[in-house]
Amino acid sequence: MLKNLPLPATLTVRGGPLTLRRAQEGDLPGLMRLLADDSISASRGDGPGSDPEPYRLALQDLVDDQGNDLLLVEDPDGTAIAMLQLTRTPGLSRRGSTRLLVEAVRVGTGHRSAGLGSAMLRWVTGIAAPALGASLVQLTSDASRVEAHRFYTRLGFVGSHIGFKYQLP
Amino acid sequence: MLKNLPLPATLTVRGGPLTLRRAQEGDLPGLMRLLADDSISASRGDGPGSDPEPYRLALQDLVDDQGNDLLLVEDPDGTAIAMLQLTRTPGLSRRGSTRLLVEAVRVGTGHRSAGLGSAMLRWVTGIAAPALGASLVQLTSDASRVEAHRFYTRLGFVGSHIGFKYQLP
Repeated sequence: MLKNLPLPATLTVRGGPLTLRRAQEGDLPGLMRLLADDSISASRGDGPGSDPEPYRLALQDLVDDQGNDLLLVEDPDGTAIAMLQLTRTPGLSRRGSTRLLVEAVRVGTGHRSAGLGSAMLRWVTGIAAPALGASLVQLTSDASRVEAHRFYTRLGFVGSHIGFKYQLP
Repeated sequence: MLKNLPLPATLTVRGGPLTLRRAQEGDLPGLMRLLADDSISASRGDGPGSDPEPYRLALQDLVDDQGNDLLLVEDPDGTAIAMLQLTRTPGLSRRGSTRLLVEAVRVGTGHRSAGLGSAMLRWVTGIAAPALGASLVQLTSDASRVEAHRFYTRLGFVGSHIGFKYQLP
């Protein structure tokens, strides 16, 4: 987990306030549901009915890692309805800028278009990045997620780079 | 630094073998020279004559970080001629895949087109990623670096994503 993040936090969205907090071991089923609730993720092997074991190990690794944090938003009855991962990376370039990487942004199907994604990302750029001493927030988005690109651009992100991936055999 | 990386390593390029090793505090001037030796980096504030203090602090932070490593290649007389940064990130998506991020790839002007960049990236995908349990290697490259994109594609990377950056005010 990343020290210095002011969590839990309250996100204000249409429909009322929601809690943003760190994920923990018991959240695994809810997190797996959120991953499966996305056609691109599902096509990469994260569909419904996946074996939970590799996800459980990954969540443990994430929670133990001092440079990473997995966050989730829960609705008032405690169901996970959104998630994102943050990674803090120190770096030399751009005058020694620390960067904050955002991965695995997911908002459950029934909770889209209510301002939740915006509230999460605004919390990342406005609260989390300064709290971690980061001056740059970065993420990559699959080229086919055209709506997501408009969303990030509206939030002040600039799509200036190409994201390359190499899948090990 | 990242445990489990088999370093120092020997890279074979045209002109003879070169050593790849971890950067340490005393390498700062050579690393700053490599950053300045790149027009895009220079335009972002990393040009010649920069105040070394923020870079010194960033290098210390990097060396102390258990999820990051800054590597450099030195020529036989000990001069830094290339660098790259690695960040290991555990993650839930893609069946709990650990990723290896590559940042700040730089090869000094006088040492390009000798196979050094390829040798570094092949070491990352073939040696470093398996040693760290990563099944995906990823990086972003400025959209204007067209030659670099051909280079990454030749090495088996797929430019499937858009890289978004948000610069804090």
